Formats: sequence, C-alpha cells, structure tokens
Amino acid sequence: MAVTGMASDGQRSADSATTLPSEVTRELAKYIVRARYEDMPAAVRREGLRTLVNWVGAAVGGSHHDGIDRAVAALAPFSAASHAAILGRSERLDIMNAAFVNGVSSHILDFDDTHLKTIIHPAASVAPAILAFSEYRNVAGREFLNALILGVETECRIGNAVYPDHYDRGWHITGTCGAFGAAAAMGKLLDLSEQQMRWALGLAASQPVGFRESFGSMNKSFNPGRAAHNGMTAAVLAHAGFTSSDRMIEASRGWAHTISDKQDWRKITGGLGAHYEALLNTYKPFACGVVLHPAIDAAIQLRNRHGLRAEDIERIELRVHPLVLELTGKTAPATGLDGKFSVYHAVAAAIIDGAAGPKQFSDSAVREPSVIALRAKVAPTADPSIEPEQVDCRIVLRDGRTVHQRIEDATGSAASPLTDEALEVKFLGLAEGILTSQQARRLLDACWNIERSPSAATIAEAAVPR
Amino acid sequence: MAVTGMASDGQRSADSATTLPSEVTRELAKYIVRARYEDMPAAVRREGLRTLVNWVGAAVGGSHHDGIDRAVAALAPFSAASHAAILGRSERLDIMNAAFVNGVSSHILDFDDTHLKTIIHPAASVAPAILAFSEYRNVAGREFLNALILGVETECRIGNAVYPDHYDRGWHITGTCGAFGAAAAMGKLLDLSEQQMRWALGLAASQPVGFRESFGSMNKSFNPGRAAHNGMTAAVLAHAGFTSSDRMIEASRGWAHTISDKQDWRKITGGLGAHYEALLNTYKPFACGVVLHPAIDAAIQLRNRHGLRAEDIERIELRVHPLVLELTGKTAPATGLDGKFSVYHAVAAAIIDGAAGPKQFSDSAVREPSVIALRAKVAPTADPSIEPEQVDCRIVLRDGRTVHQRIEDATGSAASPLTDEALEVKFLGLAEGILTSQQARRLLDACWNIERSPSAATIAEAAVPR
Repeated sequence: MAVTGMASDGQRSADSATTLPSEVTRELAKYIVRARYEDMPAAVRREGLRTLVNWVGAAVGGSHHDGIDRAVAALAPFSAASHAAILGRSERLDIMNAAFVNGVSSHILDFDDTHLKTIIHPAASVAPAILAFSEYRNVAGREFLNALILGVETECRIGNAVYPDHYDRGWHITGTCGAFGAAAAMGKLLDLSEQQMRWALGLAASQPVGFRESFGSMNKSFNPGRAAHNGMTAAVLAHAGFTSSDRMIEASRGWAHTISDKQDWRKITGGLGAHYEALLNTYKPFACGVVLHPAIDAAIQLRNRHGLRAEDIERIELRVHPLVLELTGKTAPATGLDGKFSVYHAVAAAIIDGAAGPKQFSDSAVREPSVIALRAKVAPTADPSIEPEQVDCRIVLRDGRTVHQRIEDATGSAASPLTDEALEVKFLGLAEGILTSQQARRLLDACWNIERSPSAATIAEAAVPR
Repeated sequence: MAVTGMASDGQRSADSATTLPSEVTRELAKYIVRARYEDMPAAVRREGLRTLVNWVGAAVGGSHHDGIDRAVAALAPFSAASHAAILGRSERLDIMNAAFVNGVSSHILDFDDTHLKTIIHPAASVAPAILAFSEYRNVAGREFLNALILGVETECRIGNAVYPDHYDRGWHITGTCGAFGAAAAMGKLLDLSEQQMRWALGLAASQPVGFRESFGSMNKSFNPGRAAHNGMTAAVLAHAGFTSSDRMIEASRGWAHTISDKQDWRKITGGLGAHYEALLNTYKPFACGVVLHPAIDAAIQLRNRHGLRAEDIERIELRVHPLVLELTGKTAPATGLDGKFSVYHAVAAAIIDGAAGPKQFSDSAVREPSVIALRAKVAPTADPSIEPEQVDCRIVLRDGRTVHQRIEDATGSAASPLTDEALEVKFLGLAEGILTSQQARRLLDACWNIERSPSAATIAEAAVPR
C-alpha cells in the first residue's frame, strides 16, 4: 500500500505518492505484476523498440569477439540442452547459459544502450534473459516488449535510488542492478504472483555482480551477462515457491543499505506507471563508455571540418568532466577492451580514422604505431565546470594554427538522440560480415515489428547466420 | 613476489612474510596453483576428512527439505544434462546446477561446518562444486581432498581479511567468500596457470552472494549454493582464457575496498602453506547457527540433570553474547527456517525435546503449542562480558527453586570439538530415512577413505538412494 509521507529532506514530496521504506519491495513487485502492455504510453513502447533494435545489433556485432569464443568454449561442455540461440553464431545452449553469452556479447563492444542518469546499460541483462526464454516457451511480441520495458524500468529506478554513491564505491552498477531487471522481466513472463515477485526481487538482490576494477577486461561484459543469468535464476526459483525475504531491497541488512550510503526510496516507487525511466534510454554512436563521447564527437568534427591528419597535430587539449579522467585515464592501453578506458587512445584513433566503432577499439588498433604516437599528444584536463555531455577541445597544429570545438550535447546524448535512421545504420554496420545484408535487414525488420509478432523467438531465429 | 613490510598497526608483523596490497591476488593464486597434497600436514588432511564427512551428512540430511524440492522443480527443466547427482535424491542435473542444489541442501538445516573466526560455512560452496565436477571428469580422492582443503583455506583467509566489518554491514559472508573457495578448488582441479587463477579469483570476486536479511528464508541457503555455481563458472571461464583484472581482490575499486571498510591483507597471504585456517573448521551438534549453541547446550544439560518438564518452568534467564540477540532475536518465528533465528524457540524446543536437531527446527516444531507457550518464558539479556562460546543460564522453577548452568566452551566449539564418533552419530542420524542404514554406513566409509579412492565420484554414487 502506498503511504503518503515526508520526503527524507523533511519537505513533503512533490510527487505525492512516496512510500515508507517498509513498502519498497512490495510496491515495486505489485507494479510489475499488474503492469499491462495496453496501459503503456506509445512513446514508451517506441523507446522499447529502439532499445531492442540497438541491443540486437550490439549482440550480433559482439558475437565473434575473443571473449565470446572463450565463453562458449568454457560453457558448452556443461550445457547439454540447446534450447536457445547465441545471436550471430551457430552454437545453441540451455536458456540460462545462452542468456549469459548473449548478455556478454551485447556489452563487450561497449556499444549497447545507456541510461545516462546512472550509467546503467539496461538491456544487456534484461533482453538476453527474455529472448532465450522466448525460445523455450512461446512469448508473444507484445508480451516480450512489455517485459523488456518493465525490466529496464525496474533496474533504472533501483539504480537511481543508490546512484552515485553505489557507483562511486566501486560497483559496476550495470551488473548490480541488472539482476533486478532480468528478474522483473522474467517474472512477468512467468506470471509471478505479488508474493513470488517479492521473492524474485529478493533473490535477484542477493546476487550483485561486478566491480569497476573489471573495466578493461572481459570481466566487464561478464557482469551484465551474469546478471541476466542471476535474474533468470531468481525468477524461476521464486516461481517454484523458493522463498526470500519480502523486504530485501529496503531492509536494514538488505541490498540498498549494504551496498550504498544513499537510499532514495522515492526514486523506486514514485510515479510508477506514470513516469518512465525507460523513456530516457540512449544509444551510442561510439563503441565505448558515454563519458568519452563528447571528446570523440569534437575530435571527429574538427578532423572532418579541417581535413586534419595525425602528422599535422602538435597537441590536443581537452577540458573534460572529471569522470572522464577517473574512468578513462589509461595512458597505455594493452588491448582493445582496455582502449575503451583511455581518452588518449579514443581521441587519437578518432582523429586518424574519423570514427570510433568496434574497429577503433580492437586489439590491433591500440597497437597501431600511428595511434600510439598521436595519443601521446592528447592532453586532457578535468574541469568541474564541464558537464558530462560537454567537452572543450582545442587542437594546436604544427603550423601554429589552433582549431577549436566546444560540444554542448554530444551525439547520442538525451538532448541529441540517435535517430531511427542512425540506429539502423549502426545496426547494419554491426551485423556486417556476420549476417548477409539480406539477413541483417530481415532481423532489423523483425525487431521493429515485434509488437505484431506472435512469437518473440523470431528475433533469435533471424539472428543466426545461415 | 612476497614483500616483507610493516603491519598496518605500525609494528613489524610477527609472521614476517606480509605482502603489499598490489600482490594479494597474485600471491594467493601462486599458492593455490603450487600447493600439493603431499606437502599438506597430516592434521590438516584429517580435518579435511572431518569437513567432508560433516558436509556429506548435512547435504543428505537436507535433501528432502521443501526448499530442495522447489529448487529441483525450478531448475530441472533448464538442465538437460545429467552429469551429476543430487545427494540423497534420484534426480540428476548438469554439474553447475547439481553443485548449486547440493550447496543449498547442505546449508538448509544450518547443520554444516563453521569457521568460527568469520562464521563462514566453508564446505557448502566448495564441496558441491568439486564433487559435481568429479562426476564429469575423473578426480582422484587425494586430488579431491587437496582441492577441498585449498578452497576452504582460500575463502576463510579472505573472510578473515574483511571480518567483522564486512559481516556487520549486512553481507552473508558465507555467500560472499564462498565463490572464492569454489573457484580456487575448481581451478585447482582444472590445473589453472597462475594467470588463469588470478582471473578465476577476479571473476569469483565479481559475484558476491547474499545479505543477512535472507536469514530465516530459503534465500539463506541459496547463498552458498549460488556461490558454488559462481565459483565454478569463474574457474571454467578462466580456464578458457576469459580475462579479468589481475588484482580484483585488492584494487581500489575491487572486491575488498568496495565491500568492507577493513582490509587486512596479511590475513590472506601471511604464512600460506605454514598456517592453515582449514584446521580451525568446526562441526555443529545443533541444527542452527553457532551463536545459539551455548544456550542450547546449557538448556539441555539442565533439563537432563534435573528432569525438567515445560510445566515446571516459570522463567528461563539467559545472559548471552550480544550477537545472540542481534542475530536470533525473533520472538515469533513462523517457519522452521525462521526458528533458527529465534533464541526463544531454540531454547524452548531444546528443553521440551532434549535435542536441537532438524526436527526441532521443522515447520511443525515452531507451531507446536507447548513450544510456543514455553518460548514466552525465555528471557535473554545481552551481556558484553559473555564470550561467543559462553552462556549463563538460570532457570526459575514454579516451585521456587532455581537451577543454574554456565557454559564456558559449548559443545562443538574449537575448544570442545565434536569427536569423530560424534560426527558419525550425527551423520547416520541425518541419513536416516533417506538412505538405508547399510547405504549410510557405506557412504560414511567412502568419505573417511577418500584418500585411497581412485575416484571421488564414489561419494556421489553412494549418496543416491536405491
């Protein structure tokens, strides 16, 4: 039951319906159990479709990374069932292992969706869980989209309640909140009761995954993949009556108090069904964390406008949001994954290639001598007056000239979102070489048209190379 | 490389070989990779055997709890492989799901082993992982025992480094450290290189499981079961070359700094191969957390000495260590699992039955009117002068008399360990009704004789009812 109360700052909350801490898990469970596709605003459904298109493209695009080869080799011997596809590949695994691998695959290029308020990558834990399940039991397209949106909504709301403290401590928030999303979405498809959904959330809460120390290794993409596995496990156990606490999210020795010093419960339960965090999802034009996007954006714009070549450049001065150096301060990355955490590499590669896609974050790209030479000329400075979507970039040329670009809203940010057309170009580029163009197009159509499909499994089927 | 240095309190460490934080994961990995059965002291091997006997008994004894029925029903549909047995049952699952279920089963009665310094239940995450793997690939008995001891050693050392802060915050330390134990033991059986072992520890670190809020529900035993699954997953991925950080335990945004305010690195790397935490493992005479054992011990002694019946009793006064009320202060438990967290129930049931085994912590026992009536007469007081192994119990009788018992070292504590004979009685009692007496005896012998067995899988085979 929702209880109107005082906000934690002592002011009556603006969004009226706040809940006491004792009701958080219950309120959330009740909402998930009752939420219907029919009641979801058209704009939210549309954003859910865009999330799906972007996620499928990222998963197919990542499916032949070394990390996926290794994960499949490791797990296949223990997975005799072959219920579900690995997108972009020919192997099949049991649904939980397939969900894991597809989750890893969709995040390994760091090209998946981002909820900017929390830096959660929402789809990477939710979509693979329900897609694999759709191959095991028929799930109608609308049911699938509804579950996807509810999963994204659940994890982003929970993330909002503990961000930034939780992230600052060292948690990879995508992996810690992802299990909630997967459990909520799977629980919806399993038609859990409110009591079962509370247990599913409790069991999901019990399995946070990932620390920021993983950044730069395959362990980073392991985190959302494992969160998908964890959330599925939580939901199927709860469905069978396996119990948990009814109050795992808010209890004093439960999830939020143990993993964060901040707990803003209203962020979880305020405006459920009225306000949608899932509407705030964004999609990347560049294959790395969003903190780097303004700098890359500026570098590519300057390169193209002035026809810059590496040998023209004396020095690249960047004024960046402080998190850029905290997260991407690696000066000498050793692998492509490591390169995603180097503002030096990202900007150098973007100047040389005019792009920052998977190719620019490959192992060979970070070992390319011309990139290594140029990254030594990248000079970033943390500036607290610069917002996360902004950058100020000044390039000093060898001939004495200086060129300058300030970015206010990087491409792909909430204020400058990728258009549907840009999403399609990104999708087709990612599928290139893995699927035929005809297959890629068919897969893209299957995603856009999921609401009219009697079976969400068509997406998985269309994503397997022939 | 081990670096001799100053201890954190500014004194040179007594055990000479301390390590810098930058070397913790590496030192530990190196030790695990090199440790040989031949070099393990006889007393450590013997304690490993006792750990095994106690664990197998607990797993068989718990195998028909409601929670296990539900877990098997939930997971079997997604586990087409049937490589490994569920102890005490006829179903078979793939090795990771079997490890999970056996881990849950071995902890669900709260009758498994305890490392008293950390309250970790060490075997529940380690033994099920390597036993299931032994059914998939042949593992000699000595290799199995070596891996079991190394797993226990690894998780207890890591637990020591962060206890008590980590536990005080709300983490269920058995689930958070258990994945390290399972990963170390599985990694040993997979013959990982030092680099792979660092990754395995990193991936295991990335998957802490469980909060104290789970206590009283099936979620509590989920935690070590899932830790077994997590550690296995970590080891097989690392074996296939799936990378992690090399320094996940000690890095500033890695495991220990994120999940605890205390990090005592010497506890992890000091005296490796010389001092064994695995030697400090203990086994319970009562089917609940060790904090309750002194009170139960005293209650049963007074009952037996004075022939007490419930109707004789006016009031049961207990002076207990403060953690007793913090952990087991539930006054009106609703289920058997909940009853394990009620000093009121435990003492009342022990007085009435003269025992505190699985039967006294069943759902029916907590609903028994005579127990409910007597638990209202239990009056515990927290007393900081009382040690965890102690209790002071005074029972006021209706006829005006008072009887008194002070316990200094509860049965089963480090100073008063269960004898091998008592372990056998406990084992056979747990197997009763699940295996025939002949089968139970054969299983017990298989455990005691594992060092001479060419295949550890004989234990799993002997634990399946015919």
